[in-house]
Amino acid sequence: MARRSLENLRTERDSSVTEPRASNDLWGGRYAEGPSAIMREINASIGFDRKMWRQDISGSLAHAKMLAHVGIISAEDEAAIREGLAAIGKDIEEGRFPFSESLEDIHMNIEARLTERIGEAGKRLHTGRSRNDQVALDVRLWVRDAIDGLDAQIAAVMREMVARAAEHAGTVMPGFTHLQPAQPTTFGHHLLAYVEMLSRDRGRLADCRKRLNESPLGAAALCGTGFPIDRHMTAKALGFDGPTRNSLDSVASRDFAAEFLFACAMCATHLSRLAEEIVIWTNPYFGFIKLSDAFTTGSSIMPQKRNPDAAELVRGKTGRITGSLVGLLTVMKGLALTYFKDMQEDKEGIFDAAESLTLGLAAIGGMVRDMQPQVERLAEAAGAGFSTATDLADWLVRELRFPFRDAHHVTGRLVALAEQKGVDLAGLTLEDMQFVEPRIHQGVFDVLTVQASVASRTSYGGTAPANVARMAREWQEKLG
Amino acid sequence: MARRSLENLRTERDSSVTEPRASNDLWGGRYAEGPSAIMREINASIGFDRKMWRQDISGSLAHAKMLAHVGIISAEDEAAIREGLAAIGKDIEEGRFPFSESLEDIHMNIEARLTERIGEAGKRLHTGRSRNDQVALDVRLWVRDAIDGLDAQIAAVMREMVARAAEHAGTVMPGFTHLQPAQPTTFGHHLLAYVEMLSRDRGRLADCRKRLNESPLGAAALCGTGFPIDRHMTAKALGFDGPTRNSLDSVASRDFAAEFLFACAMCATHLSRLAEEIVIWTNPYFGFIKLSDAFTTGSSIMPQKRNPDAAELVRGKTGRITGSLVGLLTVMKGLALTYFKDMQEDKEGIFDAAESLTLGLAAIGGMVRDMQPQVERLAEAAGAGFSTATDLADWLVRELRFPFRDAHHVTGRLVALAEQKGVDLAGLTLEDMQFVEPRIHQGVFDVLTVQASVASRTSYGGTAPANVARMAREWQEKLG
Amino acid sequence: MARRSLENLRTERDSSVTEPRASNDLWGGRYAEGPSAIMREINASIGFDRKMWRQDISGSLAHAKMLAHVGIISAEDEAAIREGLAAIGKDIEEGRFPFSESLEDIHMNIEARLTERIGEAGKRLHTGRSRNDQVALDVRLWVRDAIDGLDAQIAAVMREMVARAAEHAGTVMPGFTHLQPAQPTTFGHHLLAYVEMLSRDRGRLADCRKRLNESPLGAAALCGTGFPIDRHMTAKALGFDGPTRNSLDSVASRDFAAEFLFACAMCATHLSRLAEEIVIWTNPYFGFIKLSDAFTTGSSIMPQKRNPDAAELVRGKTGRITGSLVGLLTVMKGLALTYFKDMQEDKEGIFDAAESLTLGLAAIGGMVRDMQPQVERLAEAAGAGFSTATDLADWLVRELRFPFRDAHHVTGRLVALAEQKGVDLAGLTLEDMQFVEPRIHQGVFDVLTVQASVASRTSYGGTAPANVARMAREWQEKLG
Amino acid sequence: MARRSLENLRTERDSSVTEPRASNDLWGGRYAEGPSAIMREINASIGFDRKMWRQDISGSLAHAKMLAHVGIISAEDEAAIREGLAAIGKDIEEGRFPFSESLEDIHMNIEARLTERIGEAGKRLHTGRSRNDQVALDVRLWVRDAIDGLDAQIAAVMREMVARAAEHAGTVMPGFTHLQPAQPTTFGHHLLAYVEMLSRDRGRLADCRKRLNESPLGAAALCGTGFPIDRHMTAKALGFDGPTRNSLDSVASRDFAAEFLFACAMCATHLSRLAEEIVIWTNPYFGFIKLSDAFTTGSSIMPQKRNPDAAELVRGKTGRITGSLVGLLTVMKGLALTYFKDMQEDKEGIFDAAESLTLGLAAIGGMVRDMQPQVERLAEAAGAGFSTATDLADWLVRELRFPFRDAHHVTGRLVALAEQKGVDLAGLTLEDMQFVEPRIHQGVFDVLTVQASVASRTSYGGTAPANVARMAREWQEKLG
Repeated sequence: MARRSLENLRTERDSSVTEPRASNDLWGGRYAEGPSAIMREINASIGFDRKMWRQDISGSLAHAKMLAHVGIISAEDEAAIREGLAAIGKDIEEGRFPFSESLEDIHMNIEARLTERIGEAGKRLHTGRSRNDQVALDVRLWVRDAIDGLDAQIAAVMREMVARAAEHAGTVMPGFTHLQPAQPTTFGHHLLAYVEMLSRDRGRLADCRKRLNESPLGAAALCGTGFPIDRHMTAKALGFDGPTRNSLDSVASRDFAAEFLFACAMCATHLSRLAEEIVIWTNPYFGFIKLSDAFTTGSSIMPQKRNPDAAELVRGKTGRITGSLVGLLTVMKGLALTYFKDMQEDKEGIFDAAESLTLGLAAIGGMVRDMQPQVERLAEAAGAGFSTATDLADWLVRELRFPFRDAHHVTGRLVALAEQKGVDLAGLTLEDMQFVEPRIHQGVFDVLTVQASVASRTSYGGTAPANVARMAREWQEKLG
Repeated sequence: MARRSLENLRTERDSSVTEPRASNDLWGGRYAEGPSAIMREINASIGFDRKMWRQDISGSLAHAKMLAHVGIISAEDEAAIREGLAAIGKDIEEGRFPFSESLEDIHMNIEARLTERIGEAGKRLHTGRSRNDQVALDVRLWVRDAIDGLDAQIAAVMREMVARAAEHAGTVMPGFTHLQPAQPTTFGHHLLAYVEMLSRDRGRLADCRKRLNESPLGAAALCGTGFPIDRHMTAKALGFDGPTRNSLDSVASRDFAAEFLFACAMCATHLSRLAEEIVIWTNPYFGFIKLSDAFTTGSSIMPQKRNPDAAELVRGKTGRITGSLVGLLTVMKGLALTYFKDMQEDKEGIFDAAESLTLGLAAIGGMVRDMQPQVERLAEAAGAGFSTATDLADWLVRELRFPFRDAHHVTGRLVALAEQKGVDLAGLTLEDMQFVEPRIHQGVFDVLTVQASVASRTSYGGTAPANVARMAREWQEKLG
Repeated sequence: MARRSLENLRTERDSSVTEPRASNDLWGGRYAEGPSAIMREINASIGFDRKMWRQDISGSLAHAKMLAHVGIISAEDEAAIREGLAAIGKDIEEGRFPFSESLEDIHMNIEARLTERIGEAGKRLHTGRSRNDQVALDVRLWVRDAIDGLDAQIAAVMREMVARAAEHAGTVMPGFTHLQPAQPTTFGHHLLAYVEMLSRDRGRLADCRKRLNESPLGAAALCGTGFPIDRHMTAKALGFDGPTRNSLDSVASRDFAAEFLFACAMCATHLSRLAEEIVIWTNPYFGFIKLSDAFTTGSSIMPQKRNPDAAELVRGKTGRITGSLVGLLTVMKGLALTYFKDMQEDKEGIFDAAESLTLGLAAIGGMVRDMQPQVERLAEAAGAGFSTATDLADWLVRELRFPFRDAHHVTGRLVALAEQKGVDLAGLTLEDMQFVEPRIHQGVFDVLTVQASVASRTSYGGTAPANVARMAREWQEKLG
Repeated sequence: MARRSLENLRTERDSSVTEPRASNDLWGGRYAEGPSAIMREINASIGFDRKMWRQDISGSLAHAKMLAHVGIISAEDEAAIREGLAAIGKDIEEGRFPFSESLEDIHMNIEARLTERIGEAGKRLHTGRSRNDQVALDVRLWVRDAIDGLDAQIAAVMREMVARAAEHAGTVMPGFTHLQPAQPTTFGHHLLAYVEMLSRDRGRLADCRKRLNESPLGAAALCGTGFPIDRHMTAKALGFDGPTRNSLDSVASRDFAAEFLFACAMCATHLSRLAEEIVIWTNPYFGFIKLSDAFTTGSSIMPQKRNPDAAELVRGKTGRITGSLVGLLTVMKGLALTYFKDMQEDKEGIFDAAESLTLGLAAIGGMVRDMQPQVERLAEAAGAGFSTATDLADWLVRELRFPFRDAHHVTGRLVALAEQKGVDLAGLTLEDMQFVEPRIHQGVFDVLTVQASVASRTSYGGTAPANVARMAREWQEKLG
């Protein structure tokens, strides 16, 4: 019932756009009533800010407890408020809460209902706070919760990647620059590259969380309050490191939201890179991996076709998250202090970014678990294209003491010779080699295989399977 | 009932974000089922693309009629399809249609229901087309309808502005550069500046409409079809100028959507400028206009306060529209041909941009109608700050044949003298004037009043009230 | 010498960033002098706006001629101005002009030099105009010139594409959706898809040109002027359709620049798609095209490697152009009327976008001319992956009157059977076919070849080689 | 001489855009030579990457020392390299270095010159590294240096703000919401709000620095190397916390650059807010502050006019920095691993962002130092508009135990009464008050003054002058 009334609101909102049509009047069809309809739309944020109901109740509970503690309200009032809010929370959870658009936002919806339930005490709850600090608080709490959820999810994706990397520490594949095969690497090493990126993404989210973890509650409308409130107490109760230090800043700033959006956009951009690779790898000419039906779609007509829809959508979702970041930066540009209604535009972007990134991570994590590297195909590709040319050059430096640049020129001539003869580097004879450079000896052939190539790259962070396996173990320990 | 089942879907979607929480598994809480939940989310666009139901039905009607015309289906089949689609349209309109998430999108929802209703004939509807051209068609039709609605609304806002401009063609006010008063202008002239901007915004929408007005229907999956379809016929029936010329382009391109988003973003940016001015003008130190309660909010505690919330939100909405533009450009960047699931991300941005701009236009139009210019305050402000200094300089050029640059230096010295004496330019005596420049004569005082200043600026497009009145009349004729 | 003094300025500008270092004072190292250095940097746009010297001189010539025509200056003055400006133009062209940072911008540099050369007459040039309308004029002229240059260049790229499309109208290749082969198409058809996109890009530039082609000259500082100037005359002399209609709008608006940036960003996004395809096509597993050394780089060590650097950079340049668009929209958001210094930020973005797009077009055009489609490889790929499955389904509809959806299911079963048997569709026997669907007859084999498939898609805009050849001819005629 | 040859390059680059013109050929005028000119342009980054010369030399010195330490090169070679690089550094610093476009980038310019100077040893320098890790290293070092410079500069700006805040801890001014006066605050409190924002901006830069502070040197082309290099040694020598852990990630990732751009964009957005306030505050109707000539421009004609150009440009610069962020995110979206030429687009954006933000900080810091708050005007404004209404409401709650919501309604009625009588709240008589609410007593008048209002807001972070003074002291201690 409550839900239905809300849904009706939302439906009303949607339907206006469902039916664009030539409208002859000033308002556009959906605002046929004129100013009142416009202002209702402008003021009513309940359609989206109800997502923050848990945060709003948590904040009010902490505030009421503090008010009682310092004697602004009585213990009885606090108890009534506590019970009233608990009941409201239960109603919302169970879909029974009568959300009302005329009460505009989640804050007034809950407070009005509270007063309906418990009377006078409800009217005392808002003492020493204002909607400005209340909304700033709720958004911070919501973002903090979203960060915690995303952090756990990224960690889970990393664990999947590390597990597959451990499994494929020695599975050779071509390493690319310019999408041209350059040197052999391993599938495990490749996956660990993404583990590094995601690890930094977690770091960014953690830094954002740390920075936002100050309570704005008690900044009141903009100047603080004369009531003897204890902001440290509410801050502590809500898990903050402490209260914010300046009341104007507390209600005027949204950099924490923009930072969150950037962290999401960056993570999404990283996911878009792996998504692009999955799209390319599942192309039949590559054939590097297979994805099961769980993450692809076919068509009734071409059942063998495996469209990597999940990867494509992950790649595509990057756009809207970057867009939300731009949106918020645009909103905040040139805005005087302190609160303006413009800032109501902060919420939908962060809600959507969190939702989109959650989906992207779930899909990427699932595909990493699901993907079957085509080991033989990868090995064959890894050996093609004179991929061990740098190993040959390095051998010339190491064994024959060529200066690096000279070794490169000699190698280039050997590759050209091999290409001309239609063989791989290992297919050249020693005579061929010595024709180009007389000092080359039989030892060179030891470095020309793919296995030798990857095994040799033992520099820290290099692609040697032993390195990769060790790094995977380190990550497993870190990630638990 | 149908609606409820859909709303349940939407509620499910929302609730996942309502409750961010530390999730320990790979999927994020909302994807607890794993791959199937993810793929359902990825594939199901019915949550938003149902906005295009009218367009989808229009497209199918035209397609069926053409199929019958060229003999691919029978006249009976066509009649059955026509009636079936009409009934479905009625069901949707009346909220009785059983939208199903498992049928993924609006296209399959309607087609499946059609076949349920009319049997075999329904299965023949999709002959010679594909979901790829169908979705490209529906989006184009939706954008075209949105453009028509926005165009009418912008025209209505312009009419309001022109009416107020005519009324205030001679209402003097300060003209600003750098937010510093520079020269007197009139309120009507100022409003007509926005009429020009909005006129170009309409031009951009019209150009976008013209460019997108080609029918992709019949491009099929990507290569066209071997069925003897008549694409010119469907194009004509749907109001297009003709069919698109290349099937791959037809299903792969979304520049029309990006162009629409840019046109919206530009218009929103223009509105943000007037919104900023309204915020500044209603500030009490400016006091240039008053807005009624219809477009402001107060607080219970400060009933005299008039917060220009509507203007602020218009300004803030610019962010999300620009963000949607960036989102789509990001999606399309580097996408190979032809269709990728990434492109499903085109819709929500255009829906939201159209909705946001509709609101912004309604609010701006309403405020323009509602605002009461404070004529005396404006006049007083227009005369302050030596605002006729350029008139004096021009007089020196015109009457005394000073070179322009020299006239400026003399004027500067006169302003400095007036400032020092604490009077306005008109408050200087002829002796004061002649002390600085002996050739100045009594005639100079004719150009030093605000009224003389604005009246003199008769160059085409200048601020002279007669000019403004004439221009307002021209606009009234153009806008009807 | 003149040039050197300018270059010194630019070097000074650069060096500050060359050497970032911990600076202990307020100013940052490069502003060690304090306010004067900051203001010089803020005000001096000569480092970049000197690009508009031609436009500035053209504007002044037209203005002077008009001033003489209406009698504001004498014919002698006008002649002196004309000769002076001609001499200055020659000096600049030949690198002898002494640009001065203390004169801030290109406008003052030229005017000051003019007065140095011709005396009093130079001081009269600025009568009836202001730096505000002058800069608005110069930027419009510059953008108009840039549009003309880009338009010619896009047309040239289109001609290259059309020529290659005509050559390869029948060269079969796989058509992709989701980067999975879907249906056979032709190389020519694929190229013509880009011709369509570029054609719309030209359309956007043309519309932008048309819309901006109004002269702001004479709007003066912001209110027009009392001098009896003839704005229609200067507008005509400068090739405009007429003067702008509102003086405030004339100096306050930059939507023409944002529209130009969008048109560039959209074109760059289109180029990025072809660039992505070139990167993919030159990958050895695709092997669809070869690029000569002219457009690739190798390494000394792997001479066979062909890195498609040119394509990659074209793809990458999309970022900065989109960034410039966002930059200008951000600048203009919420800016009151009329002129603010913020708007000085319009120039570098448009200069850079024009430059970047010119490079991108040159590179894409060059690669289109240079690329060698690997016809045999393309044909082989076109036939793989049951690519004629839809042809089979269409045959079932056409010949056996299957409803479309049923035909798809039957085809799906046949593909599955072929996959199981390890053959292509054409490799199934009639018995195999009839096992799945008894009514299938020998005629089906006619539609299962790649050549038959593409030849059959004769719907308007479809991939049939005859269509493609005809469309190429139409484009050749249009493009001349 | 060296400089001149470089400048010639740059001039050539610029001139192409100086003269847009209709070009009939494929290349655009500036690429008249065709492919070679295009590829030179695409490959030559020396025009901008020479900014990194210090970083490049530092990296090479550390690399050479390590190569000698582990025995890959001899001590003599290392000494020759060291001396050679020192001489090259000196040449560059003194403008004598012959930069060459044909050597493409700063890395090859320096290496080639080194080999010219010291022969064979120069050719050995590149052993065990590649241009891919070298460029990744140089960019990281450059960003790290830029962060250090910006951090010091932000701290200096904060010190200015704190000093002014201490000075004006008790200078009352209106606090605004919606640009409507809401409650009295103090000028010091307002400035400290920006100190908080800038402090978080420093935090973001510091976190970015910490995260990027890993050395990619030794990742080589993409897979690491077989040479027994010691990456920990070079990392330590260059001030890194250690080497990166994955070679592919090391050469493929640019999130550190995007994070830097975001931190700059966020800081610029904060500055844009203060810049907007300065523009508004210097408007004569506000008259809140005066800026000296050092930070304003006038016109020769209106010498009293003070255009806050510096503030405007600070506000405007936000656009280009946000644009650069969008640019890089666009570049990286959907880019497969590892290196692509697209990534060359990372540099100009970060160079420009650092430069623009340096200017913005210098200007804001200078204006904060320069601005003269107009104390009397601020006090007068602070008292207007029933600004102590909330104090009255709070008094009703505190003294008369009204529930908060009821107190608000009573206050609203009192304000309406005062408005009607044309007096301030303090101008109401006790009888007036008691007419509305009989329990009100004389004590209420104690809370109705501006001074009492601000003094009462002693909640932590509130606007009470004592709070502000204490907070300013805390910041002074923190900032040193």
